[in-house]
Amino acid sequence: MSFAEGGSIEMMIVMREGAGEAEIEQILERLAEAGATGHVSTGDVVTVIGVIGDREVIAGLPLEAYAGVDKVLPILKPYKLVSREFKRRDSVIQVGDTRIGGGHVGLIAGPCSVESREQLLSSARYVKAAGATMLRGGAFKPRTSPYAFQGLGVDALKILSEARDETGLPIVTELMDPRHLEDVREFADVIQIGARNMQNFQLLSAVGTVDRPILLKRGLAATIDELLMAAEYVAKGGNQDIILCERGIRTFETATRNTLDIGAVPVLKQRCHLPVVVDPSHATGRVDLIEPLSLAAIAAGADGLLIETHPSPETALCDGGQSLNPGDFEKTAARIKDMIEWTGRRLG
Amino acid sequence: MSFAEGGSIEMMIVMREGAGEAEIEQILERLAEAGATGHVSTGDVVTVIGVIGDREVIAGLPLEAYAGVDKVLPILKPYKLVSREFKRRDSVIQVGDTRIGGGHVGLIAGPCSVESREQLLSSARYVKAAGATMLRGGAFKPRTSPYAFQGLGVDALKILSEARDETGLPIVTELMDPRHLEDVREFADVIQIGARNMQNFQLLSAVGTVDRPILLKRGLAATIDELLMAAEYVAKGGNQDIILCERGIRTFETATRNTLDIGAVPVLKQRCHLPVVVDPSHATGRVDLIEPLSLAAIAAGADGLLIETHPSPETALCDGGQSLNPGDFEKTAARIKDMIEWTGRRLG
Amino acid sequence: MSFAEGGSIEMMIVMREGAGEAEIEQILERLAEAGATGHVSTGDVVTVIGVIGDREVIAGLPLEAYAGVDKVLPILKPYKLVSREFKRRDSVIQVGDTRIGGGHVGLIAGPCSVESREQLLSSARYVKAAGATMLRGGAFKPRTSPYAFQGLGVDALKILSEARDETGLPIVTELMDPRHLEDVREFADVIQIGARNMQNFQLLSAVGTVDRPILLKRGLAATIDELLMAAEYVAKGGNQDIILCERGIRTFETATRNTLDIGAVPVLKQRCHLPVVVDPSHATGRVDLIEPLSLAAIAAGADGLLIETHPSPETALCDGGQSLNPGDFEKTAARIKDMIEWTGRRLG
Amino acid sequence: MSFAEGGSIEMMIVMREGAGEAEIEQILERLAEAGATGHVSTGDVVTVIGVIGDREVIAGLPLEAYAGVDKVLPILKPYKLVSREFKRRDSVIQVGDTRIGGGHVGLIAGPCSVESREQLLSSARYVKAAGATMLRGGAFKPRTSPYAFQGLGVDALKILSEARDETGLPIVTELMDPRHLEDVREFADVIQIGARNMQNFQLLSAVGTVDRPILLKRGLAATIDELLMAAEYVAKGGNQDIILCERGIRTFETATRNTLDIGAVPVLKQRCHLPVVVDPSHATGRVDLIEPLSLAAIAAGADGLLIETHPSPETALCDGGQSLNPGDFEKTAARIKDMIEWTGRRLG
Repeated sequence: MSFAEGGSIEMMIVMREGAGEAEIEQILERLAEAGATGHVSTGDVVTVIGVIGDREVIAGLPLEAYAGVDKVLPILKPYKLVSREFKRRDSVIQVGDTRIGGGHVGLIAGPCSVESREQLLSSARYVKAAGATMLRGGAFKPRTSPYAFQGLGVDALKILSEARDETGLPIVTELMDPRHLEDVREFADVIQIGARNMQNFQLLSAVGTVDRPILLKRGLAATIDELLMAAEYVAKGGNQDIILCERGIRTFETATRNTLDIGAVPVLKQRCHLPVVVDPSHATGRVDLIEPLSLAAIAAGADGLLIETHPSPETALCDGGQSLNPGDFEKTAARIKDMIEWTGRRLG
Repeated sequence: MSFAEGGSIEMMIVMREGAGEAEIEQILERLAEAGATGHVSTGDVVTVIGVIGDREVIAGLPLEAYAGVDKVLPILKPYKLVSREFKRRDSVIQVGDTRIGGGHVGLIAGPCSVESREQLLSSARYVKAAGATMLRGGAFKPRTSPYAFQGLGVDALKILSEARDETGLPIVTELMDPRHLEDVREFADVIQIGARNMQNFQLLSAVGTVDRPILLKRGLAATIDELLMAAEYVAKGGNQDIILCERGIRTFETATRNTLDIGAVPVLKQRCHLPVVVDPSHATGRVDLIEPLSLAAIAAGADGLLIETHPSPETALCDGGQSLNPGDFEKTAARIKDMIEWTGRRLG
Repeated sequence: MSFAEGGSIEMMIVMREGAGEAEIEQILERLAEAGATGHVSTGDVVTVIGVIGDREVIAGLPLEAYAGVDKVLPILKPYKLVSREFKRRDSVIQVGDTRIGGGHVGLIAGPCSVESREQLLSSARYVKAAGATMLRGGAFKPRTSPYAFQGLGVDALKILSEARDETGLPIVTELMDPRHLEDVREFADVIQIGARNMQNFQLLSAVGTVDRPILLKRGLAATIDELLMAAEYVAKGGNQDIILCERGIRTFETATRNTLDIGAVPVLKQRCHLPVVVDPSHATGRVDLIEPLSLAAIAAGADGLLIETHPSPETALCDGGQSLNPGDFEKTAARIKDMIEWTGRRLG
Repeated sequence: MSFAEGGSIEMMIVMREGAGEAEIEQILERLAEAGATGHVSTGDVVTVIGVIGDREVIAGLPLEAYAGVDKVLPILKPYKLVSREFKRRDSVIQVGDTRIGGGHVGLIAGPCSVESREQLLSSARYVKAAGATMLRGGAFKPRTSPYAFQGLGVDALKILSEARDETGLPIVTELMDPRHLEDVREFADVIQIGARNMQNFQLLSAVGTVDRPILLKRGLAATIDELLMAAEYVAKGGNQDIILCERGIRTFETATRNTLDIGAVPVLKQRCHLPVVVDPSHATGRVDLIEPLSLAAIAAGADGLLIETHPSPETALCDGGQSLNPGDFEKTAARIKDMIEWTGRRLG
């Protein structure tokens, strides 16, 4: 009954109808050269080859290039260190005095970008008062237009640091360029990798060697497995303190800026052991959807939220249209805390 | 300060850079012929024409066909009867002894298809016991493959009717063909229009004249506004008892069968007065995601859920892989009822 | 070396890591009940089961519903009659005096909808003069808005018929409702099934028994395999004269109405034996893209084109913005004929 | 008849139905503060405000954040230097002895990555013999998996340089990290920015100051306008020698790796003056689609092609499944040259 012993089937090669013995033989030889073995099932219609061997070696073979091959179906997941199989228990990540993952829910809030000392300190105070567990704020800003505000850079990092000193809130800020790594590492508690850099592999490798947790945002067109592969880049460098962030994917729907993939939350939590947070601000680009989608995210099992809020959205230099004002943030945060309690978990 | 009086700007016509006076004049004449007026803004770079007149007339003009036109931007929504502006208060739809909308949350459950009298009656009993407010079950089944089970047809309708008699649960079943309308109307309490028929305009018109509420599912690639236009087809026929259903859209992500657009729930509720339900079974195709996404949907404000469940999913003739078994349905229903209470609304 | 004899592997079942013997045994029993056999490969990490048996029976089993199953990978294509394996040579479809497929390239042109006798006869004359091999024109129109022009119905069919009598051009027109089948069959030479009805399975089945070729348009969100499954519905009824039409799919890009999937042309021609035409008018919604995309389609191997043209696009009741005027149609048709010659094939 | 004088309407603000005078007044004040003016059209249903003023200032205002605003519609394009309005004539880019744009069609070919001196020199010789005008080859490779081959780095650059010395073909190679800019600039004739880095704004800014043409690939989920904005980042730095590359976008279709957006070619050429090339290898991931889609691209007006080819695809360290072997490349190149001639343009 068993067709293959002594190893896992890593991949199935489905031959085209009409593929001949010579074509099959050529593939078996290539597999043998690579130290793998192919187990052939010859059928009335098509032939299927199950491949056993070292996962990384097999994945690197250009099997689609061979004559007679119809398709190649991978059986095993391409990531390891971040997988749930590698580590069964939820990772809990400690950031300053607060935690995220494994029953601890984080509420990360603050403005899109640091615009001034007053704006940021004011933000830090009211988000702290409303229950936020970390402060976000951009020092270096990725902007679609080269004519838009690009951030205050190192000056912003210093202001964020001052806000942490005053409020005790750990700082989450984005790194866009490996040349800024030392500066960001010095001032930030959590280093964010933005959606547009999710497959900036040089940047991922760079933060894999750093002693700071990484908040890794899903790319606009990245699959769940590609997000996990990006996390694997970081983990492979030694840094396994990674928080994943679902922030909306790009679809045909234009009523919202992006489409929040709420199903990604439970899928990610099945496939990996890392905490998963949701950013309803970027997912929708609409301030009036932040509360319903925040509640939905917590209900679906998210380990935290990343919310944009601004002391005065009408004057914001970026993302004003998706930023809660202080009063609305306070109300929304209260509902979120209530929902966290409903799920039997705790804030921070 | 005012550039147009005596009417609403219905549409903006943006001319190409370099468009000349003759081209603008030609458009103004066409507008005038149609009883509309164009208000011209001549700028350094482009000219913009604001159009005032009857919405339906203007929408029918092929303005993109004119020389010199760059793009046409509609200002007003293309639907009326279903819009929130037409009716400010939430529609509450009465189905038998139960309600949906305006604080009443529906729990519609049952198997993908009616397979036998025993299977359906058994389903009706346990979903009723667990708290369902309506029973779903397919008599006519849309199947991607012509070789798959196509439903029992009228026999299934009779079985559904028997289940209603026994349990009191109203029946929700799909209509696929206008030729079956009389049969379905006779036995069903709510007539479902499936995702693949959301733009089957003949079918929409047909159910617009029937004295049964319509459950209208969003098409896989339909925008929120297209769903509302489809509802407008039904409403225009006189039938304004319409329940909208978000059931996942098609995206690049393959980890789930479709991507549940959770943001569509609050957006729909802003734009229209109709109740909005969510179908987590079809949205994901995965039984293990039904509970988290059901809770998320209620948290985001959905007026109900449509859940597939089967007395024995392993023997189901369709959708077995996304159907809850009786025990799991009971547990999930309990959590859902708890969440409904948390939101301050009531079941049924 | 062989892991399965006496049949084709139809499907691979990949078990979750940690799935136990009892779970595997349960699946093997279900397969045996269905007359199929499962061949087990037990590996270090995951177990894989290759399934051999009747394709349709196996496809109907809800294997995802079983405990311990991670995913189910189909090996064989789900369609048969339309597949290239079923018939190696290109199908050539005769329509009146013209042909399409297998070296014969069709040029189907005409207005979006029949608006009047004059408009249609005028269209028929100039498209004939410019080289069109068939005349298109809508009698029943699918319109997103219930307030838009819905077509002249049977009157339009009679006008189309008159145009055929005068010019000799076969008529292509859309069927939207099975209740109109007899009328449309009587007057049309080719019956079009529109994109929104590609999965209207009742309609597909209805035209499967008719003695007219079917022009089947790809749905906005339909995969290539779903299009082929829809064609299989028609073929299963006995009607194998099917012309497939790529007309753009829905993506995130908004610069064009839809995105022409040019790669679908060669992929369809590999997978099936049916002629494949392209509709650049609906694919882009922009008159200025019709010529470049028509040339691209023929260059990529398409068996024909479906082009909207109107005697006076500025007065068209639908799709004016994407309709070529007579002069531009003539120029574009000349370039198309030149390109057909370049590819070594012939018009009609 | 004119509703706004003394400037272009840059943006339309559509108010929600029911928005009051106070809300409108607040927006007018904010516009005035920013040196812009708002022209109000008060209608029966909605109020619309046309905004006149400096484009960059207006684009930076968070107008969606204001109470009563329904939506904000930009009228003007957000890019300038790359726009067709800025420069009417096609840009022709000189690279070594060859040109691209304005009637000169480029054929850029070579392996995915430089694997060895022998592999690359052999590639250079046969692509030159077959008619290629530039040689491509990766020194630094973006790989989804951290376990895959990452490229030979600077050693590869030296090998590429040697190939140029021998064959005279200019070198196109990818830059992934601003820290490698000097090395890549030293050896490359054209610096490629890959799809995953299309919105790596630091990298874009870095290459904006370099004296090498840039080949900028469209991101998997980037709109045409976002691609043009990315090009604007480069142009703003002073480097206006930019070649755009359509290489497939991510859609729901899985039959091809990505979906080639052939319509993007004529749309880009309308909106900007830069040359546009197509990469059929990455667009489809299938060697058998390279020829039909190459011909389609040239027929649609593309200024060049980027094709992967390998001396021995079965041994390739990356992208073997989408690389043409030398014999097939020669045949395809001959067809491409024939098609270029058909369009009345010239190779190189």
